[in-house]
Amino acid sequence: MAKKYCDIENLKYILNEVHDFSSLLKLEHFADHDAEAIDTFLDSVKDFSDKELYPCFTEMDSPPAHYKDGKIIVHPQVGTVMKQGGEMGLINATFPYESNGLQMPLTAFTAAHYIMDAANNHLPGYLGLTMGATELIIHFASDELKNTYVEKMGSGQWGGTMCLTEPQAGSSLSDIVTSATPTENGHYKIKGQKIFISAGDHEYADNFVHLVLARIEGAPAGTKGISLFVVPKKRPESDGSLTPNDVITAGDFQKMGQKGYCTTHLMFGENDDCEGYLVGNPHQGLRYMFLMMNGARIGVGRGAAAIAEAAYQASLQYANERPQGRKITNTGKKDPTSKQNLIIKHADVRRMLLMQKSVAEGSLSLVLKAAKLADLYNFTKDEKEKEHHKLLLEILIPLVKTYPSEMGLQSASNGLQVLGGYGFCSEYVLQQYYRDLRIFSIYEGTTGIQSLDLLGRKVVMNGGEALRILAAEIMNTMKAASDYDELRPYAGKLGEKLQLVQKVIEHLAQYAMKGDFERYTADATVFMEMFGHVVMSWLWLEMATFSKEALVKGDTKHAPEFHESKIHTMKYYFKYELAKTTSQAEVLMDAASLTIASDKEIFA
Amino acid sequence: MAKKYCDIENLKYILNEVHDFSSLLKLEHFADHDAEAIDTFLDSVKDFSDKELYPCFTEMDSPPAHYKDGKIIVHPQVGTVMKQGGEMGLINATFPYESNGLQMPLTAFTAAHYIMDAANNHLPGYLGLTMGATELIIHFASDELKNTYVEKMGSGQWGGTMCLTEPQAGSSLSDIVTSATPTENGHYKIKGQKIFISAGDHEYADNFVHLVLARIEGAPAGTKGISLFVVPKKRPESDGSLTPNDVITAGDFQKMGQKGYCTTHLMFGENDDCEGYLVGNPHQGLRYMFLMMNGARIGVGRGAAAIAEAAYQASLQYANERPQGRKITNTGKKDPTSKQNLIIKHADVRRMLLMQKSVAEGSLSLVLKAAKLADLYNFTKDEKEKEHHKLLLEILIPLVKTYPSEMGLQSASNGLQVLGGYGFCSEYVLQQYYRDLRIFSIYEGTTGIQSLDLLGRKVVMNGGEALRILAAEIMNTMKAASDYDELRPYAGKLGEKLQLVQKVIEHLAQYAMKGDFERYTADATVFMEMFGHVVMSWLWLEMATFSKEALVKGDTKHAPEFHESKIHTMKYYFKYELAKTTSQAEVLMDAASLTIASDKEIFA
Repeated sequence: MAKKYCDIENLKYILNEVHDFSSLLKLEHFADHDAEAIDTFLDSVKDFSDKELYPCFTEMDSPPAHYKDGKIIVHPQVGTVMKQGGEMGLINATFPYESNGLQMPLTAFTAAHYIMDAANNHLPGYLGLTMGATELIIHFASDELKNTYVEKMGSGQWGGTMCLTEPQAGSSLSDIVTSATPTENGHYKIKGQKIFISAGDHEYADNFVHLVLARIEGAPAGTKGISLFVVPKKRPESDGSLTPNDVITAGDFQKMGQKGYCTTHLMFGENDDCEGYLVGNPHQGLRYMFLMMNGARIGVGRGAAAIAEAAYQASLQYANERPQGRKITNTGKKDPTSKQNLIIKHADVRRMLLMQKSVAEGSLSLVLKAAKLADLYNFTKDEKEKEHHKLLLEILIPLVKTYPSEMGLQSASNGLQVLGGYGFCSEYVLQQYYRDLRIFSIYEGTTGIQSLDLLGRKVVMNGGEALRILAAEIMNTMKAASDYDELRPYAGKLGEKLQLVQKVIEHLAQYAMKGDFERYTADATVFMEMFGHVVMSWLWLEMATFSKEALVKGDTKHAPEFHESKIHTMKYYFKYELAKTTSQAEVLMDAASLTIASDKEIFA
Repeated sequence: MAKKYCDIENLKYILNEVHDFSSLLKLEHFADHDAEAIDTFLDSVKDFSDKELYPCFTEMDSPPAHYKDGKIIVHPQVGTVMKQGGEMGLINATFPYESNGLQMPLTAFTAAHYIMDAANNHLPGYLGLTMGATELIIHFASDELKNTYVEKMGSGQWGGTMCLTEPQAGSSLSDIVTSATPTENGHYKIKGQKIFISAGDHEYADNFVHLVLARIEGAPAGTKGISLFVVPKKRPESDGSLTPNDVITAGDFQKMGQKGYCTTHLMFGENDDCEGYLVGNPHQGLRYMFLMMNGARIGVGRGAAAIAEAAYQASLQYANERPQGRKITNTGKKDPTSKQNLIIKHADVRRMLLMQKSVAEGSLSLVLKAAKLADLYNFTKDEKEKEHHKLLLEILIPLVKTYPSEMGLQSASNGLQVLGGYGFCSEYVLQQYYRDLRIFSIYEGTTGIQSLDLLGRKVVMNGGEALRILAAEIMNTMKAASDYDELRPYAGKLGEKLQLVQKVIEHLAQYAMKGDFERYTADATVFMEMFGHVVMSWLWLEMATFSKEALVKGDTKHAPEFHESKIHTMKYYFKYELAKTTSQAEVLMDAASLTIASDKEIFA
């Protein structure tokens, strides 16, 4: 195990300085918080992660969580984290006061969970899903349901899950068939199967509260006929006792990674005795679920960003300790009698490490920016500002989910490569990060689905307004960067690339205008890659500008090397990653249509 | 498990038609072979793989090969494959008659091992390493050593290994310290430790013959002081008995993938009783090893190409069976009451599958081209031709090792993504291919090392002659393609890209001419990527031209769809992959130097 799994100085720099966290505290909703207390909270989460999460990270990989005799067996540390995490507010801190919450900004909560994800990505999901399920109840359920469930879930006594996927439907939620039959008592009888249910069962919670998408008999076809239900594993009775509610844990899914985070198969109503309680109005289930989806997608991006950071720290440490090989001299030869170099001295290793650093830290900045936008959107009172934050958040969300997942995986792969043969060996942790990270581009809508969302919905929403707002923000950063000679060329480059994105969209729009939406979105994933590099270059330029200012002002909070490293990494990003957009634009504007199905069999 | 793990029609098409295998049989060395018999041999290997290799592929992943009580426990099928594989000639088929071989072309042998790799990549290495070790003895050892070892190894009774890596040296072979002390009896006493020894020990061979790099006392420093020794696990005595030779299996390495292919840690001479027998002359060990290295690198590329193919077949089958989602209509909506589509109808899935197909089949073509060049180089008598084949092989070899490994991994990752959540689950095989493939970019010289070899040695060798020969070959294909209207634009595009490679090299050469070799090679890995896409586009254009000709001629051996699919995949490759070279050239010609170590701490 590496000594370090995340860089707290860097986290606080991005949180407090680059994203000016304390500005959020001016919002009335957060009035009781101060930046210092949040700082202390983050330190306590780091301490908790050091003691309770990181030490069991590799243990949780083997043996994996598994199904045995109708139960899911998980690592006992799940119990510690549910209990202590619950007590520390790591489930309910963002909830309003009336729901036993602390009204903490999501931004601070995201930073806290990021630390936990970096320490041990198998554990925070148990808290995170409970949080998400509770939030749905807080936002949309009746007072009765709130009174019954919120406190117990928010404290971690009861676990929560999200039950969307069914075997026959997969990502196509319009095809779910779990049924809800109304009864005279006001509740519904639920019948159906749900798969891929994370944290769906274990022995360290007294009860589980499943938020289940189901179809009320006679509901319209498709996504418009889906309702949301609270379905507890055990029914809370008025005397406080718990009665089994015909929810059976039918099995689990063994996986390549995140093996300590159990993935279950649940059966509801096999004995016709499963009660479900409607949340809000009928047929609104998917809408409710999707209102919470931005938070879930920030959570996925956060997890991937955190694993990428942990992988970076592990390979950086190795590169700083492992001697191997020698520098080539200017005769073109090496001197075998000279001392071996540390591998961090090799250009190719430095290129891989810079890639890791740029992806890990850039992803963190992206995730925190999104969390801040979510806070601003939720609690700003000015309607115009609210709309601004909303649109900016909406256009960034598919990327927040996708970029850390896709590029984080490539970066962890580089990290593994830094270790050579050892990187492939189980005794080194890189291979575990690499396996764990692989799921993130599938969670909560695959990359393909996020890319359709970005190009098919977000780019065109409100007549392109979200994109215009984003472009204006990018131009603000370009302007600020242009005050410095060192940064001006990068601002110029970013401006060119922004225009290139615009050109690509105009090109693709031709197809949409002809009603050929399939062609318009056919290369949406390539568009996502291009868009991602431009947005990330913006965030790196923002970070570099902040560091440049700090250097000029003679900041003493961080060493000059800290800031110089940021500027250097920005330059890396522009040279090696942003450059990829030239080719991506070429692909996107290529006239050939090669991926749309026709009668012609191309996979002969 | 998917029904199909490789496409034999496609393999034979690339082998026999695109690469005109039978032309090799005109060489005197291969005079006794005919194409039909080779065809039958491949069918028998396919049959063997169907029966003995593929059925235990997932079993070999779990439980893994492992160390227990001084022994390595492997899947019993290792025994079957060593024995039956040995009998079938899958170790010694390419050996000369006088070494009990069949003088089979390496090209045919490569096709045979490709089938086995696709069926179960954990098994062929046991045969392949035995082959490699035996070849070293055949080429460089004394008749006494040959008489003692070649027959037993060639038949699979004894296993063979290559012992290069040591803990403190890693890839830096000049730093190995295993010692060889001469004795009065003519042999040497060996002392030292070797790690990462594939197939280093198991119960299914009567003996192991290790080919060990060691340093004779007083040898010059660096790679020029390394000698090669035959070090058996048990010493063959004159009466045929075997005496333990102080080779201890000290442990193993547990890995993320290829878990059935054991990786061992060996200790030689702990009790000062380990005899080693010098191969050839002192201090020539690394030279001998590297003379065999092209074969080893073809083997690695072949394995990666085969896994990429198996992954492609598995995800193609899934995409053809799994319904999910619907096509967007020209109103921009979907009709939820309509039947679900098979996922192969989605453009993004088709893009991923085409990427897989282009990488898998392109890699196979590259590997077979290299094997053919090796055969031509080894057995052509005309010195000028020989030199031509040699140079072409030398410049392609780093790519043969690297492209299938790096792009194969990306392609298997796409394959996993096609399955969504199931792709991450252990019950589907994609995640195993993905894990198995990850080692290939590390085996036999990492991608970084291959890239230094390509740019630092091969591009400049013989005054750039290898590159000129390659360019001439590419232009021949462009000329042939230009006969067809459909292909002419692609020939033109390839010509542009060839010039772009030339431009990049001229740009980089400035650094080399100033003696700044570190800067010259700093982005060698990016150069490798660019070079790879250009070479692979050439091979795809070659394949498309062949298929176009066949279509025009009314070929009846394959369905028209087979050939049309080749042309379509070539177009995919040019649009989506070759396009990346624009950006890669941008990176390579960017003046900023960001990855060369200086006193400045950039990883603060």
